[in-house]
Amino acid sequence: MTDLTLFGQQAKAASQKLALLDTNHKNQLLEKMATALEENIALILSANEKDLVLAKENGMAETMLDRLRLTKERILQIAEGVRQVAMLTDPIGEIEKMIKNEDGLMIGRQRVPLGVIGIIYESRPNVTVDAASLCFKTGNAVILRGGREASHSNQQLVTILQDTLIANHVTPHAIQLITDQSYEVANEFMRLNQYLDVLIPRGGAGLIRRVKESATVPVIETGTGNNHIYIDEDIDLQMALDITFNAKVQRPSVCNAIETILVHESVAPVFLSELEKLLAPAGVKLFADKQAKAYLQTAELATEHDWETEYLDLMLAIKVVHSLDEAMTHINHYGTGHSEAIVSNNYFSTQRFLNEVDAAAVYVNASTRFTDGFMFGFGAEIGISTQKLHARGPMGLMELTSTKYIVYGNGQVRK
Amino acid sequence: MTDLTLFGQQAKAASQKLALLDTNHKNQLLEKMATALEENIALILSANEKDLVLAKENGMAETMLDRLRLTKERILQIAEGVRQVAMLTDPIGEIEKMIKNEDGLMIGRQRVPLGVIGIIYESRPNVTVDAASLCFKTGNAVILRGGREASHSNQQLVTILQDTLIANHVTPHAIQLITDQSYEVANEFMRLNQYLDVLIPRGGAGLIRRVKESATVPVIETGTGNNHIYIDEDIDLQMALDITFNAKVQRPSVCNAIETILVHESVAPVFLSELEKLLAPAGVKLFADKQAKAYLQTAELATEHDWETEYLDLMLAIKVVHSLDEAMTHINHYGTGHSEAIVSNNYFSTQRFLNEVDAAAVYVNASTRFTDGFMFGFGAEIGISTQKLHARGPMGLMELTSTKYIVYGNGQVRK
Repeated sequence: MTDLTLFGQQAKAASQKLALLDTNHKNQLLEKMATALEENIALILSANEKDLVLAKENGMAETMLDRLRLTKERILQIAEGVRQVAMLTDPIGEIEKMIKNEDGLMIGRQRVPLGVIGIIYESRPNVTVDAASLCFKTGNAVILRGGREASHSNQQLVTILQDTLIANHVTPHAIQLITDQSYEVANEFMRLNQYLDVLIPRGGAGLIRRVKESATVPVIETGTGNNHIYIDEDIDLQMALDITFNAKVQRPSVCNAIETILVHESVAPVFLSELEKLLAPAGVKLFADKQAKAYLQTAELATEHDWETEYLDLMLAIKVVHSLDEAMTHINHYGTGHSEAIVSNNYFSTQRFLNEVDAAAVYVNASTRFTDGFMFGFGAEIGISTQKLHARGPMGLMELTSTKYIVYGNGQVRK
Repeated sequence: MTDLTLFGQQAKAASQKLALLDTNHKNQLLEKMATALEENIALILSANEKDLVLAKENGMAETMLDRLRLTKERILQIAEGVRQVAMLTDPIGEIEKMIKNEDGLMIGRQRVPLGVIGIIYESRPNVTVDAASLCFKTGNAVILRGGREASHSNQQLVTILQDTLIANHVTPHAIQLITDQSYEVANEFMRLNQYLDVLIPRGGAGLIRRVKESATVPVIETGTGNNHIYIDEDIDLQMALDITFNAKVQRPSVCNAIETILVHESVAPVFLSELEKLLAPAGVKLFADKQAKAYLQTAELATEHDWETEYLDLMLAIKVVHSLDEAMTHINHYGTGHSEAIVSNNYFSTQRFLNEVDAAAVYVNASTRFTDGFMFGFGAEIGISTQKLHARGPMGLMELTSTKYIVYGNGQVRK
């Protein structure tokens, strides 16, 4: 069995060195990693081909194969992503302000790396490079544990990154990959408290649940988005239709898409019949409560299951509500705290929605699809946190840091 | 067995209401809680007396009895602490800045309560009121699980706080106390992910370890401080002695006291013999490595155990080192990431120490005893975090908050 203690020790030792690299040095290495990826496209494609062949043999569905597949263009995009990370401002070392306390101590809170970050993820091999570059930029050592399906691709990608580090006299343990796919090793990884400062799972609801239940390492929960749009009494109909269509159809497989529409009864007849005219041609299946179903031609009757489910597909649950309060109660009950939106012309409705809905991102008159590190101006994203501790919402470089207090004295003792 | 699901549901429902209370309202309630504590001193003392009688019957040591004991003065201090919390600035609702993103969305990050906070602690009944008042001020519901020894005191204190809430038409579920002392209930509490947003253990190393190993709820680890002072080559001898004496002797039972002194060999003979003249009369037992022992009259030979131990007592481990590097390697290996200090006249030594020592608070030429929310100017403290996620170092009101993104649009959809 893989010796995770060794991985942990190596990562911890590496993290102490990485914390001291200056920004120029880190950026140069990221540039070189990008170049190395571009120069080794053939190797990466060949490793990826092995994964694809095995996946097909195992009967993987085409949508999943597409997540796993690398092409020349996708590899160039991945390398370009690394260059963009190099261009971002490095948060490490910053002290926003220092206070002089009553004893004359100068006290400042400095941004430092978290230390060792564990990432546990599924089939997309681009996560390997994205996560490695973001962790490297912030001076963290990373231990990656990717999915079995992408193991050849991941190994090849990590080898290229590690070779770049070695060629530039930086420890390759800055970026390590666990290739052992056993359940036991995954479990041990989640309990590697002595070495891991944080564990970030990236993947489907099953993975997230397993990590939450098994991990004793601090976890940042990501991703599950059972999101809603509430269509209020007083709306601009066209805007409501555009936002709803965008939030459901533009990219249904992602966590910031919506899964349920809540419609105020006063606008339900006209809004729902217009909405169906847009959604039916787009292939969206509708699951509606009794009242909403009366205004729809093609909807099936929704069950409790529909309110609870993150479809991640061209399916939409629809419910008629009789008040803003009913909508917010539904959202705070069934929502996963990801992204929630209200469409309304009423000032007080929008303010109440912003204050009373408990989610990482709450929108007024905009699509939930904007919950994304790039759209929020972070220039990068390691995931979207749906927990309240440490990070909430899109996580960029800042969320991969911690702080330490540094204190300058001149002999102060406590009285 | 106690139904923790009910506790959780009640706390969650309460948290939704607390999040919407405005600051004036919260402050008035805190003032009333303080007054209620002052008016019910007799009741509190009588409950505390029951705990003390039982504790004595069970043979509790006098130092522990002292932690458990309430007096009129201590209760007045506790009430005064609640008034001080009322006077602190409320962080909830603040948005530091809003950005206008490329799509024209106005995006701001707003301070919100964490939601439901669990506190698991040991014998000091003052923690009950401190924690309840800090959680209340920040709009969080709290579920307290205090120690068996203090159960009568804790129940009486919580009853007084809850009665104040009820009398003022606020839900008493804002502050709940688990009185069931069974192991099973504690374990269930640590896994109450559906309702608890965070769990903060406050107590000895045994409690912290148990929570870390059992909890699936996000935990903020607090308290363990195996702290060091490194005495560099070039020092002001009197300053080094003053700081060391203060950090060890002023209050040895607390987590920001030091446990080990690392002394550069060049100053070891004179520094250690002078230090012994101060520490011996103060009753400090010394455990020294071979080289240090040669300069000391009363020291016993240190073992591995001494480098690892947080004595929390009048004991001090002493080691001679041959360089700053050796000192930092020792600290980063044995330290618990709490508070570390260097005494030095050398600019480059102090800068390297600040950069390379990995701890919540790193000091130059000052006593580690300053690691404390009050000393850092927070006006309050719920504990000292030794983890890197969410909060590190002294935790004040800000550390009991999370954030949510609020986004104002005018019809934006994602392209």
